[in-house]
Amino acid sequence: MSSAQQSGVRPGEVLVELPERVDATLLFIGRACTPWTTSRDCPRQGDPENGPVCRIEVDEPWRAALAGLETNTHVTLFYWMHLARRDLVRQSPRSDGTATGTFSLRSPNRPNPIAASACALVSVGSDHLLVRGLDCVDGTPIVDIKPLVCPEAPRPKD
Amino acid sequence: MSSAQQSGVRPGEVLVELPERVDATLLFIGRACTPWTTSRDCPRQGDPENGPVCRIEVDEPWRAALAGLETNTHVTLFYWMHLARRDLVRQSPRSDGTATGTFSLRSPNRPNPIAASACALVSVGSDHLLVRGLDCVDGTPIVDIKPLVCPEAPRPKD
Repeated sequence: MSSAQQSGVRPGEVLVELPERVDATLLFIGRACTPWTTSRDCPRQGDPENGPVCRIEVDEPWRAALAGLETNTHVTLFYWMHLARRDLVRQSPRSDGTATGTFSLRSPNRPNPIAASACALVSVGSDHLLVRGLDCVDGTPIVDIKPLVCPEAPRPKD
Repeated sequence: MSSAQQSGVRPGEVLVELPERVDATLLFIGRACTPWTTSRDCPRQGDPENGPVCRIEVDEPWRAALAGLETNTHVTLFYWMHLARRDLVRQSPRSDGTATGTFSLRSPNRPNPIAASACALVSVGSDHLLVRGLDCVDGTPIVDIKPLVCPEAPRPKD
């Protein structure tokens, strides 16, 4: 293993050689504009009530897919944690030499670094939405937007 | 557009030409074994309390990433809806000629067909888990497993 691959790996952490195959491919549909420029600045979890309003820019050809979204009070945003490493199967969040399995952690470092954030929907434009509750770094690629059923929200239409 | 591309498209629905680029790639980490053999058989939403117990098979090299998961009562399973079509930006769930944007629906047909299901964790083995609350077809590829913080569950360790 090269020292580059090992950089940032803590004592006790376990790396694996990732298979070279591709099982599925993603298309980024847009990106998040947030106040946080590095992973370290991001809140641990977004706050849909009091977090800052963030803008989600949606690219063509997906802008037509926003129609009807404005009837929802909340959405789930799926995003791709592009700064994550994907080869850690055991991680040591406390850097204390003890490591636990990646699937028992909510760390961004995981084989498929996808996150789903519950957000309050502030408004919907023709090419963007405004939301509260994001927790990701500025420029994070967005892969999906879905209505979120909250106890106090009306049922989605599908 | 070929008739094959149009097959299954309902009046009012809008298709787009998907970009040929690849923005990110996924590695399937395992698969779900469920009682439902077609999309039509699947429940609309999984039931973590009374739904059937389903088995999630985890492949190498990711089995080591299961360590510590057993301390959680609930998990979020991220899966890839491999039977979905990805080119619909407006859909007509009721087949009544009216269509709404894909992002305002929870339909499996979406540009990046990823779902996140909240499940109760029944048990964890060395190469699998048993869960309640899935809603997907037998053989669905799994892309991630994360601890889920429920009001009654202990906080995850990261």
